[in-house]
Amino acid sequence: MSHCSTQNNDCTCWSCPSVEFKGHVDLRACGQAAFKKAASGQLVVECKRQPELGYFDPMSITFETCPQWKKTEFGNLLQGMRVMILGMDGYLGWPLALKLAQLGCEVFGIDNFIRRKLVKERDAQSVLDILPMEERLQLAEERLNSKIHFKEIDLLDRTALNNFIAEVKPESIVQFAEIPSAPYSMASADNAARTLENNVIGTLNLMFAIRDHAPEASMIKLGTMGEYGSPLTGRPLFEGIFPGEATLQYKGEEWSLGGELTPRDPVSFYHVSKVQGTFNVYEACKYWWLRSYDVMQGVIYGTATPETAAEPGLATRFDIDEWWGTVINRFVAQAAVDVPLTIYGSGNQKRGYITLKDAIQCIIRLIATPPEPGQYDVVNQVTDVFTVRELANTVARIAHDEFGLNPIIQRVENPRVEAEEHPYDVIHEKLVNEFGFESQSSLDDEIRQIFKAVLEPEAKARILEQKESLPD
Amino acid sequence: MSHCSTQNNDCTCWSCPSVEFKGHVDLRACGQAAFKKAASGQLVVECKRQPELGYFDPMSITFETCPQWKKTEFGNLLQGMRVMILGMDGYLGWPLALKLAQLGCEVFGIDNFIRRKLVKERDAQSVLDILPMEERLQLAEERLNSKIHFKEIDLLDRTALNNFIAEVKPESIVQFAEIPSAPYSMASADNAARTLENNVIGTLNLMFAIRDHAPEASMIKLGTMGEYGSPLTGRPLFEGIFPGEATLQYKGEEWSLGGELTPRDPVSFYHVSKVQGTFNVYEACKYWWLRSYDVMQGVIYGTATPETAAEPGLATRFDIDEWWGTVINRFVAQAAVDVPLTIYGSGNQKRGYITLKDAIQCIIRLIATPPEPGQYDVVNQVTDVFTVRELANTVARIAHDEFGLNPIIQRVENPRVEAEEHPYDVIHEKLVNEFGFESQSSLDDEIRQIFKAVLEPEAKARILEQKESLPD
Repeated sequence: MSHCSTQNNDCTCWSCPSVEFKGHVDLRACGQAAFKKAASGQLVVECKRQPELGYFDPMSITFETCPQWKKTEFGNLLQGMRVMILGMDGYLGWPLALKLAQLGCEVFGIDNFIRRKLVKERDAQSVLDILPMEERLQLAEERLNSKIHFKEIDLLDRTALNNFIAEVKPESIVQFAEIPSAPYSMASADNAARTLENNVIGTLNLMFAIRDHAPEASMIKLGTMGEYGSPLTGRPLFEGIFPGEATLQYKGEEWSLGGELTPRDPVSFYHVSKVQGTFNVYEACKYWWLRSYDVMQGVIYGTATPETAAEPGLATRFDIDEWWGTVINRFVAQAAVDVPLTIYGSGNQKRGYITLKDAIQCIIRLIATPPEPGQYDVVNQVTDVFTVRELANTVARIAHDEFGLNPIIQRVENPRVEAEEHPYDVIHEKLVNEFGFESQSSLDDEIRQIFKAVLEPEAKARILEQKESLPD
Repeated sequence: MSHCSTQNNDCTCWSCPSVEFKGHVDLRACGQAAFKKAASGQLVVECKRQPELGYFDPMSITFETCPQWKKTEFGNLLQGMRVMILGMDGYLGWPLALKLAQLGCEVFGIDNFIRRKLVKERDAQSVLDILPMEERLQLAEERLNSKIHFKEIDLLDRTALNNFIAEVKPESIVQFAEIPSAPYSMASADNAARTLENNVIGTLNLMFAIRDHAPEASMIKLGTMGEYGSPLTGRPLFEGIFPGEATLQYKGEEWSLGGELTPRDPVSFYHVSKVQGTFNVYEACKYWWLRSYDVMQGVIYGTATPETAAEPGLATRFDIDEWWGTVINRFVAQAAVDVPLTIYGSGNQKRGYITLKDAIQCIIRLIATPPEPGQYDVVNQVTDVFTVRELANTVARIAHDEFGLNPIIQRVENPRVEAEEHPYDVIHEKLVNEFGFESQSSLDDEIRQIFKAVLEPEAKARILEQKESLPD
């Protein structure tokens, strides 16, 4: 990726999903870099969007010079770029769809609505009321002039998935359609199996569908920082793959570890399913020369984006219960209704965090700079590292100083199997250095915005209705 | 494991599956080593086999001094040890069952017979005729005086699996019930999904069943050397987990990698499923303090063991087709009927190998020295490293010199995505140093034995019937 400037101006047709290699090209026959070198001046491509160009050298046109790529606030994007979002009904999927549509992309979503069902099974609910999909789509069109396409599909239904991908021929595919809860996955064999089946077999089916119907598409897969665990040695948590300078020393000899996947150490069957998905995607890129970025995302928080804030009916879901919520969102909701903020054990557990707005910017920047044929790469999508105690203190301070609330912070025995005191040296450089990501959020601001949203009477009522499902 | 002598005489009740910790013990609350230290003199156990002993210190009785553990040719084994073999109808499962029964274990098998179905779907067949399970069991009883129990169960049927484990309360569980073919897994989305579902969800279900009904059982999981790939740097292929002396160097700093899983690099969705299974087992040991050895097995070859050779009807399956056979077995079968031995590309691909007999010895030695509570460990089950070309040459030489055959070795373009020239430095020390394994086979002897078996008229006929399914 180092060939791309942060604004992706210098990327060439080599990375463009609209380009097809011509002639008999066995991409797998040689290494990626060797092939690219050989390709320059030797191999020709055709542009599916501009067949009138005939055959040409893929390195001869850059995103800056190509009339199909247009500058946006997050780098150049293909005009009317066909982006498919799997899990479009979710917390991240919906605001991403709205944003991409605003940026001129043609957005196609799928979802099986399992998240809505699972939250309901738990007797929990989104604190912000979520409309049925058809109403969301209608509102997006009326208020934002965004026409978004949607089809209810379960990734386990291979036929439906294949048909939709064959029909849409997406240029980029964002895989958010996974069950995202660690405690849910540990609660029973049924839940664990459902998580693995949905996440692992679902992503497997997707890779076959891409191979058969959209092999040039870039695939962006949502993983989690939890795939790495937190090694007690304090070694850096690299971005998925060892960098070239990392070496292994053993019995007086030395080897580069560069290019090898770093060790994974998942902490629940949900996290296991994410690691398992990583291997599915890695294999598909290696074996079939598909292209993917695997996003190790920190814990996400926050509520509104400019698009979801345009109208209450455009809100994205906001879960706070122990299974489906995340910690900062939950703390603010608890403070809003005078429920104590709960810290497990010492509260010194460190994790990486990122706001919803920043996460969406990252994903769009990844879409804007597609991987090369056969490239599998990993980014750590994190802006800050906090301890749980810091978060509780920050929420309590803002609650008190700015909203006149008096939340209590309570510590309980830790029900989890985890080290409470541990180093956590997350490397998160690629998104900034190679994709031009700049954070547009801060913890304090985001907490303020969440307070404003959850202190609305209807939201407060919905928090109180599910008090039972909060940790105590 | 270093606490055990090679004959497992010095192992204590700490590792014994017949022992239960008494009182309120949260095994997960502290690290494994720390807990063991604390346990000595502090914690007490009860023996399910000898309740008359009352409560006692788990470190006070060794396998050598306990009357329940009896010396066998492969170390001490519990008298009438209840061993459950998942996939007992398979190539490895059946001879393991016969051997364990000979050693005085009470053997319980399950199988869903999917291997028989899949081989048939491919229009292939075992070169040695395999009787239906009931007849195999009857013959084993008549000829070897071995009463082996069996139940047809699919690991995806959680209720049946739970019930059987609750009923048997196995002291050791050997997980061979996985679909083992790389080319099968790559041939279609259906096959890949079936492989992942059977292998990954099947093993997940098993871990829950063990947690709920046999948490002290040791679990031996069959993996493959192919989980590691073959890094082109030539770094050692450690036994699954970095040893303490292995360090990471990066930007002038150094950290031990000891205890972390080594990078995996699977080469097909079958291999991916094995890596995914590794993470299921790893998680269950970490989270629930279950106990497991994960066996990274080399390519297996050979046919008879003393027990399967006792009578033709006791033979284990012997597959040679491109999907279900393995390379040495196939080469001998091809030579036996004058079909050329096929080498892909240069033939310099190196892999680790082990004979059926040696593999069974290894598994029994692992059963004999169970892991400690919470222990997840990995062994590389390999005796030799050969190139494909060496194997073809050896088979051709023995065919010519000893059996009067004249096999041709032919090279074809490599249809696989693999480096043909690569280093391959496999570490395989644990089984020898810590479990007392000694190889009782040699390549030449084993090839001779296979020739004798497949040159029988009935076997030759069965090879010729499936000529179409051999590589060409």
